[in-house]
Amino acid sequence: MSEEYYVGVDLGGTNIKAGIVTSGARVVAKTSAPTECEKGADHIVNRIHDIIEDMRQRAKLPREAIRGLGIGSPGTLDIKAGVVHFVVNMPLWREIEVVKRVSEKTGFRVLLENDANAAAYGEYWAGAGRNVTSMVMFTVGTGIGGGIIANGRLIHGDTDCAAELGHMIIESQGRKCDCGNWGCLEAYASGNSLVKRFKEALDAGGESRLAAGVRAGRKITSFEISEAALAGDDLSNRIFAETGVYLGVGIVNVMHIINPACVVISGGLINAGELLMAPIRRTVQERALPDARRNCRIVFATLGEDAGFIGGAGCALAEFGTSR
Amino acid sequence: MSEEYYVGVDLGGTNIKAGIVTSGARVVAKTSAPTECEKGADHIVNRIHDIIEDMRQRAKLPREAIRGLGIGSPGTLDIKAGVVHFVVNMPLWREIEVVKRVSEKTGFRVLLENDANAAAYGEYWAGAGRNVTSMVMFTVGTGIGGGIIANGRLIHGDTDCAAELGHMIIESQGRKCDCGNWGCLEAYASGNSLVKRFKEALDAGGESRLAAGVRAGRKITSFEISEAALAGDDLSNRIFAETGVYLGVGIVNVMHIINPACVVISGGLINAGELLMAPIRRTVQERALPDARRNCRIVFATLGEDAGFIGGAGCALAEFGTSR
Repeated sequence: MSEEYYVGVDLGGTNIKAGIVTSGARVVAKTSAPTECEKGADHIVNRIHDIIEDMRQRAKLPREAIRGLGIGSPGTLDIKAGVVHFVVNMPLWREIEVVKRVSEKTGFRVLLENDANAAAYGEYWAGAGRNVTSMVMFTVGTGIGGGIIANGRLIHGDTDCAAELGHMIIESQGRKCDCGNWGCLEAYASGNSLVKRFKEALDAGGESRLAAGVRAGRKITSFEISEAALAGDDLSNRIFAETGVYLGVGIVNVMHIINPACVVISGGLINAGELLMAPIRRTVQERALPDARRNCRIVFATLGEDAGFIGGAGCALAEFGTSR
Repeated sequence: MSEEYYVGVDLGGTNIKAGIVTSGARVVAKTSAPTECEKGADHIVNRIHDIIEDMRQRAKLPREAIRGLGIGSPGTLDIKAGVVHFVVNMPLWREIEVVKRVSEKTGFRVLLENDANAAAYGEYWAGAGRNVTSMVMFTVGTGIGGGIIANGRLIHGDTDCAAELGHMIIESQGRKCDCGNWGCLEAYASGNSLVKRFKEALDAGGESRLAAGVRAGRKITSFEISEAALAGDDLSNRIFAETGVYLGVGIVNVMHIINPACVVISGGLINAGELLMAPIRRTVQERALPDARRNCRIVFATLGEDAGFIGGAGCALAEFGTSR
């Protein structure tokens, strides 16, 4: 069976990342360019076309070798219709018929996917979730997002709102979340929440090597808290351990709802490594039903920033492919 | 396209319910017989055979008109292998190769399904969830179980443990659940929990027309509490409203994880009708992301006790059918 080639595009507010990936999940070319979304939708569509052409020529592939193109976009989408309705940070990328416009411009078959789903599909197809048929990814950065693959397919949900994992309620009377609800996982275990809980602990009189800076009004990041924790700062360690416990509760919930073969954790917070993973594993061990957790691997993502475009290409393979 | 016939069997510790259902979801025969599981596995297999033969002859269908048989069983299963490992109340129905034995005995193609999944599939195929491609069912009785259909298929999970909806954690430091964990939905919103919370409220000095009986040591049921609530008993109303709020939180979570087109509520507690549904709807309205709830119908199950065998037949159609 000869290899086919698929293009994945990971559209972000700042940069467009893209790559050409074989049906065997090998990346043969990749690139990145500023989105410059202030220049409008035509500019973005042209830019997608140009970077694909550039990659294709560098990879010495004829146009007909490319079997399809998968675009991961942020925002509120209608995936079946191929339309982006709304993106918070991209005011000129609204109500855009992405599939129609990009396929007209490039001549390729195009599909649209939510960026978080595309990244999850990338890890499922080519990364930490290889060789399973069900996987849930938690992306833990400023907020918490995710993607779910069950029966070998992404779950989009009825209105493309599935896998809003940050907004599962884990404390029904709990902390206020940015979404307006109370007790969401994101209000406990995101990078933003981690910083907030750290500051609250300082306000409550906690001691930390980071205290002086924070009290002097310096902005602090979850990365600095993880560095302090690794250097032995007790309060930072405690806050990270709490974060891991809350993430563990979220993971227990998906184990009891989806029962995936693999849970993948991605996003900025995974730089903290075992600071985060140890309390996650302990919580799952203590709280998940044995049959639901026994075979389930909990691992960090392995594709990093490439997950989005690799997943876009993988989704294009699943949709347009003939070789599997 | 001519109709095909499928048999569904809903195996319970007390009774076996079964029916013959067309590929158009019309029930052409149904029956019920005591399981008598104390007589052993051979007896159960023979009984399944006998009631199917009896129905088939009553319906005047030739053997070859039956295209397959779906059996819903309680317990810990290996669905792919067609094996029941363990059932709490059926000590002689353990480590049984159900698919092999029933297909040898009956000559039909057989599949095994979890009983809760089968009932959910029944509602999806022929009941409250007709005409959608994604549905989550919460079965609220003594405990809380469920079933999930996404992309038109049941989600079994990697080890057939998906849709353990009663064991999603909604209060991470909350009430102790029978499973050993804390804060599970089942510890707040099951029939058992409802009775328990009612008694706790009485112990805390609450007044109710049911108080004298309970204090005299009489066993009380969730049905009596619902009757009292409907008759205007304040404490009973408050406890039901609480139950609906907790169920609503569980439903919000599946909306944010699965984003189904329909949520179906089944089980004994639905006799309470609006007592339960009003606080559920209010909670979802207040707490679910608008895009996740906007199109989602929340309804009671419509097939009652027939859901299990209808779903078994529907699963057999999905697995063995040629006409869709």
